[in-house]
Amino acid sequence: MVDAEQEPTRPGLSRRGLLGLVGTGAAGIALGGGAATAVTAAAMGAAAGREVYPFFGAHQSGITTPVQDRLHFAAYDMAAGSSRDDLISLLEDWSYAASRMTRGLPVSESGAVDGSPLAPPDDTGEALDLPPSGLTITFGFGPTLFVAEDGADRFGIATKKPRLLAKLPRFAGDALQPGAGDGDLCIQACADDPQVAVHAIRNLSRIAFGRASIRWSQLGFGRTSSTSTSQVTARNLFGFKDGTANLKSEDSAAIEQNVWVDDSSWLSGGSYLVVRSIRMIIEAWDHTRLEEQERVIGRTKGEGAPLSGGTEFSPLDFDAPGAALIDADAHVRLAHASNNAGARLLRRGYNFVNGNDELGRLDAGLFFMSYQRSPAQFIGVQRSLARDALNEYIKHVGSAIFAVPPGAASTSFVGAGLFR
Amino acid sequence: MVDAEQEPTRPGLSRRGLLGLVGTGAAGIALGGGAATAVTAAAMGAAAGREVYPFFGAHQSGITTPVQDRLHFAAYDMAAGSSRDDLISLLEDWSYAASRMTRGLPVSESGAVDGSPLAPPDDTGEALDLPPSGLTITFGFGPTLFVAEDGADRFGIATKKPRLLAKLPRFAGDALQPGAGDGDLCIQACADDPQVAVHAIRNLSRIAFGRASIRWSQLGFGRTSSTSTSQVTARNLFGFKDGTANLKSEDSAAIEQNVWVDDSSWLSGGSYLVVRSIRMIIEAWDHTRLEEQERVIGRTKGEGAPLSGGTEFSPLDFDAPGAALIDADAHVRLAHASNNAGARLLRRGYNFVNGNDELGRLDAGLFFMSYQRSPAQFIGVQRSLARDALNEYIKHVGSAIFAVPPGAASTSFVGAGLFR
Repeated sequence: MVDAEQEPTRPGLSRRGLLGLVGTGAAGIALGGGAATAVTAAAMGAAAGREVYPFFGAHQSGITTPVQDRLHFAAYDMAAGSSRDDLISLLEDWSYAASRMTRGLPVSESGAVDGSPLAPPDDTGEALDLPPSGLTITFGFGPTLFVAEDGADRFGIATKKPRLLAKLPRFAGDALQPGAGDGDLCIQACADDPQVAVHAIRNLSRIAFGRASIRWSQLGFGRTSSTSTSQVTARNLFGFKDGTANLKSEDSAAIEQNVWVDDSSWLSGGSYLVVRSIRMIIEAWDHTRLEEQERVIGRTKGEGAPLSGGTEFSPLDFDAPGAALIDADAHVRLAHASNNAGARLLRRGYNFVNGNDELGRLDAGLFFMSYQRSPAQFIGVQRSLARDALNEYIKHVGSAIFAVPPGAASTSFVGAGLFR
Repeated sequence: MVDAEQEPTRPGLSRRGLLGLVGTGAAGIALGGGAATAVTAAAMGAAAGREVYPFFGAHQSGITTPVQDRLHFAAYDMAAGSSRDDLISLLEDWSYAASRMTRGLPVSESGAVDGSPLAPPDDTGEALDLPPSGLTITFGFGPTLFVAEDGADRFGIATKKPRLLAKLPRFAGDALQPGAGDGDLCIQACADDPQVAVHAIRNLSRIAFGRASIRWSQLGFGRTSSTSTSQVTARNLFGFKDGTANLKSEDSAAIEQNVWVDDSSWLSGGSYLVVRSIRMIIEAWDHTRLEEQERVIGRTKGEGAPLSGGTEFSPLDFDAPGAALIDADAHVRLAHASNNAGARLLRRGYNFVNGNDELGRLDAGLFFMSYQRSPAQFIGVQRSLARDALNEYIKHVGSAIFAVPPGAASTSFVGAGLFR
């Protein structure tokens, strides 16, 4: 691992964290290092792979953070019979391990090779020589964490359920596959090196052993959205630039207005994450003439300029005369804020390819993720898209929603507000 | 796409190449640009993403080329009823498109946006703004291309079948899954950007439409072997350095002796590629104590040094006295050349994660690829591994073998020697 700042002395994971083999009896753990991390990030600079984003802070990292290149996302279900204490210890252990891995350190001080030779290593080791690679680890809570599908209040937090947190409604064109959606908890691991993102999900899954297990997961290899004006716009697997009009972190007023929950609840400073696994029917798309592809999207394919004229970042003109008019069913028109009562989303999607199907077609698409202060923002836009010309070429196969807590103080853990 | 050298005037793909929509009637295509490419590679230098490896030459690139970070591998079957001419035109079209994509260019001159708006674009476009990223595209021919499973000589090349090309024998511990092995043809696309590798496989699959389709495929995210002394040794998902003792391209005598076929056949200058999809039982491994992990491998986990002493690149000493002895069933002992009549392989494996299984365990492992002048080299080593202590933690689920033709002259195409 890289040289990072000296790790302050602290207890390790909770006793159950690593299969009972970590030699500390501390049940509650003291977390720290937020301020030090910020200093480190600045000191390390942005050299390749050396980028470090703070784990602790007012908001969780991985939301407005400039989108990293790779994703490993996993949704988890709590184990049958697990208790409130199990959930608390899990969130403590996850926060502790995440605060280390995001700095390029192993999950615990004894790491992958420095513990007892007679115990399984705490860390699985595949990221031992890799830099932090801009890793962010972002946690979210699904509706079923608060109230199970049978109505049970398993963790004594039913009264803490955010008012707006509910399974998404069914949308026109949904073709949801069982097992590819929902979940009690989720972790979004983003990094510029896929091995670093995979290492994070793998080790957090291992730490959860006996308390929670993966329900479904997805790797993403190419970011399709930028969240910073410093990033160039990337392309999705339809070959079009995606996310040109996305919210950018530099527009702090728009971020405040559209992304962060701002109320007196435990969720204040957090957000809502909507996840949609969108399979692209790429063979049908690839048979479509260029003119039609551009009509469907409402932008040119090369430059990404609106069909109403200009260059990539020119405003969309929905009333331009003549041939340049953006079609009534074009994706950019229906998705645009002006068509959705001003609603804007912070998108963080990734391209994916999950092998191929039995007909030899690539199982490919867009793993859509958006952050917003209210699920209504996404729901409104998605309803507008019911007559999207693009629907002929896509199929929504997975869906989930999570309340994403605010960031933790360096002496606490993510989600602590739930238990006060 | 990046600025690359000026494309010499040449016909496009064969008529059937892109769904019959490319406006050229040329059946045979003239290929060129090999020399120009080499110049370009040198001129572009090794700036991030700008690395270009020549497509044309004595050997195909992607074998001794320093292993790139990402992989998209696909095995194809020829369509029922396809003819010798279909196979020839497919190989011509694939070579033409590959010679362009490896230079960071779209699959044809009209590309993704420069053709007729009334036709589907030749190129799918998702790599439009990306540099060449060290892309290599390497083609191979499976045993069934020469003689189908029912004995048919579909393409009139049965007499050209390399003497040593035959389906691999069954090995102890094989748990092969139907549909995850074999194939008439294969393409190994390696690049430092996964979107560039995916773009290559996607477009080559599209070009094959009606002639061949994907039988199975695999994405790899982390190289586990180095093929150059300039590369650091990477780690597999067991957390150990992998490929320390791999053949290195700088050792040209060992490469000549172990990798390249050298006879008077059409395959001379080519190689044999063995592919094994190895699922790792990572949960069992992660429960194993460090001492046992190191005993199983025969090296230390941190440094990767032999248990017989020294540092990573110290020679393995199988006769060292006392506690440092490498176990009789240790992986490094059984796999070592001295235990296998001197046989050495050029490995090019990648880590993979294919989501998770129904129990919430990551479907993860090693996508093993090795190049050798004779399949016997791999078969001998794999038989030695029958009592490998590592077998408790792995499962071979996919298997395939391909004859990898030599590189093409810039006026020809890969595999042309088959049809002379």
